[in-house]
Amino acid sequence: MQTVISVPLPQNPYPVVLEAGGLGNIGAYLSQPERISAHLGSHQSGHKLGKENLGKKVLVVSNPTIWKHYGPTVVTSLAQAGFDVAHCILPAGERYKTLRSLEKIFDSALAHRLERSSTMIALGGGVVGDMTGFAAASWLRGIAVVQVPTTLLAMVDASIGGKTGVNHPQGKNLIGAFHQPRLVLIDPETLHTLPTREFRAGMAEVIKYGVIWDAELFEQLEAADQIDRHRAFTPALLLDMLRRSCQAKVDVVSQDEKESGLRAILNYGHTIGHAIESLTQYRTFNHGEGVGLGMIAVGDIAARLKLWPKDTAERQYQLIQKAGLPTQLPASFETAAVLEVLTTDKKVRAGQVRFILPTGLGQVKITDQVPTSEILGALRQMQAVAAD
Amino acid sequence: MQTVISVPLPQNPYPVVLEAGGLGNIGAYLSQPERISAHLGSHQSGHKLGKENLGKKVLVVSNPTIWKHYGPTVVTSLAQAGFDVAHCILPAGERYKTLRSLEKIFDSALAHRLERSSTMIALGGGVVGDMTGFAAASWLRGIAVVQVPTTLLAMVDASIGGKTGVNHPQGKNLIGAFHQPRLVLIDPETLHTLPTREFRAGMAEVIKYGVIWDAELFEQLEAADQIDRHRAFTPALLLDMLRRSCQAKVDVVSQDEKESGLRAILNYGHTIGHAIESLTQYRTFNHGEGVGLGMIAVGDIAARLKLWPKDTAERQYQLIQKAGLPTQLPASFETAAVLEVLTTDKKVRAGQVRFILPTGLGQVKITDQVPTSEILGALRQMQAVAAD
Repeated sequence: MQTVISVPLPQNPYPVVLEAGGLGNIGAYLSQPERISAHLGSHQSGHKLGKENLGKKVLVVSNPTIWKHYGPTVVTSLAQAGFDVAHCILPAGERYKTLRSLEKIFDSALAHRLERSSTMIALGGGVVGDMTGFAAASWLRGIAVVQVPTTLLAMVDASIGGKTGVNHPQGKNLIGAFHQPRLVLIDPETLHTLPTREFRAGMAEVIKYGVIWDAELFEQLEAADQIDRHRAFTPALLLDMLRRSCQAKVDVVSQDEKESGLRAILNYGHTIGHAIESLTQYRTFNHGEGVGLGMIAVGDIAARLKLWPKDTAERQYQLIQKAGLPTQLPASFETAAVLEVLTTDKKVRAGQVRFILPTGLGQVKITDQVPTSEILGALRQMQAVAAD
Repeated sequence: MQTVISVPLPQNPYPVVLEAGGLGNIGAYLSQPERISAHLGSHQSGHKLGKENLGKKVLVVSNPTIWKHYGPTVVTSLAQAGFDVAHCILPAGERYKTLRSLEKIFDSALAHRLERSSTMIALGGGVVGDMTGFAAASWLRGIAVVQVPTTLLAMVDASIGGKTGVNHPQGKNLIGAFHQPRLVLIDPETLHTLPTREFRAGMAEVIKYGVIWDAELFEQLEAADQIDRHRAFTPALLLDMLRRSCQAKVDVVSQDEKESGLRAILNYGHTIGHAIESLTQYRTFNHGEGVGLGMIAVGDIAARLKLWPKDTAERQYQLIQKAGLPTQLPASFETAAVLEVLTTDKKVRAGQVRFILPTGLGQVKITDQVPTSEILGALRQMQAVAAD
């Protein structure tokens, strides 16, 4: 059973395929585009799949753990479909999301003699996806890329929308490109092997979609018994949650491919989240945990500014806690340093920091009118609890 | 007196301004777009200049020599127009066209806190232009760039068309992006300080346009007394040569922004030229010299295949020689190694090497039907003369 969501970008339309066990069909999806298009109306075509668009040579980029679990399945499926497969295994972790790691991908691309008509496949989480996407954007000034996310975070966020890049030593995702994939293939079964902490990190983004776009998703999660680990979900709820999250991302991205306006709402919780991650040297919190903390902070700021009711902010706090995500800052955390980091964030325009503030469930607004005192107040509130 | 050529790309139209002394007006051009648009018909608008499009912060990237000669003029003009100017000086030379140098630009971008609305300015030759263009394409996933070429080669080739990138240790320009500039500003007076060898290298590209696109340009150069150094040109002939060359590039690029078809003809002489440069470790020949040698080889191949008359190939050979460019390969050069390098060239499609072969003055065709024996024959011919 596949679910197919079409990303209707004018220049680069592509499908997001969700299928339990889909990893074993990757070769077929890439070589027989009709397997996907059959699920879509005839008006939704223009996908660039098939060997005439992807070439014969593919380079799979992954990390050691994911490669051990899923490399053989993917390679077998691709080889059976007639692709000439090479792979490049990068060390796992955000701290390897650098220009240096990119060089390794380029070395593999050269060794495998990837041509303009060849394809890179990102098999892994957001780090692998972002780096592979940027490598594909840059190799020979742009070749095809397919995203096969294996973490919840990458499934619902990074794999869709074409944002790719690496970190600068002093800031995340400062270097990159917009490069849309040809296909996003999501196999929920890969979540079996995802560590619980990583699963929870992904839940932060799922909750985000509930707050900014899909109130029903938010309420579905509130109604569920438990949402803090993969095995607490029924396959049906898991698939529906993935579908709703991907659809939210697709809705926003397809209305604003290059982040000139609407797409900014996807950064809900991210600006402060990035700052918290960065100030704790990316050691204390992972990306999703940063986002969860950022959402709590921004939710509180919105409540302080009377943009949304205090009890809605409280519902968001409860849901983040229910997902098993951290809700407190370390006692040693220097809240004032956040302000300094914020002004180097790439979303800064003319020195003004823009915030995405919720105004209701499923609704947000963008504003640069947030007093510093409220930012500090919200952060200290999160820390005061920690110091208890 | 300005000459303005409009590059009519649907998404990213931009002007190429040629003006003796134009460097001193750069601030005015960037802040007062009407100074340029006044020279164009009203149908040719859509240029994204002015502070509302370029921001207030600009980062000028250059190399030590160019910066010494022209940095003060450029900075003064920009500052007078109200821009907040920083600079980043990179070592000169093709061997520094690397990801490592890119990091330095990113460090400067961070230090100067360039925002999405900021602009990078490439002041220098092709190396500076290519790197700055790629850095601008990648910083925050893409900010504006202005190309101010100071070498003949960069003026007539690299600065126009949006190709940007860096070298891989094993191949030129393997990593990069398409990123169109907002303005190309060409000041012929900067050629005063260009070393003669560099001027001649640029003449290789000028002659190329004569062969592939503009027979009149070719004949103009044949008719000139001397073309092997800057001071042999009258200001009028120099400007006309620049204008015709830029127009040829613009004509081709605007018909094929992303190099899917026609644009390939700009690679006339380049495929073999790159191989020769690479096999001599980029020490013996510079880019233009490689192209000159490549054109001689390909011209000879075309003559061998009876695609154009032997005497036209001879006229091309004479013009390249008249420009003071090398016409012979070193006696020690291993011609057979060229074939190996050709198959890793990024213009390879499905293992087949495509050649741009002249079929007349101002006309070429693209073919992958070139017997290895003819390639080797042409190269050995160039070497046999050297061994005499």
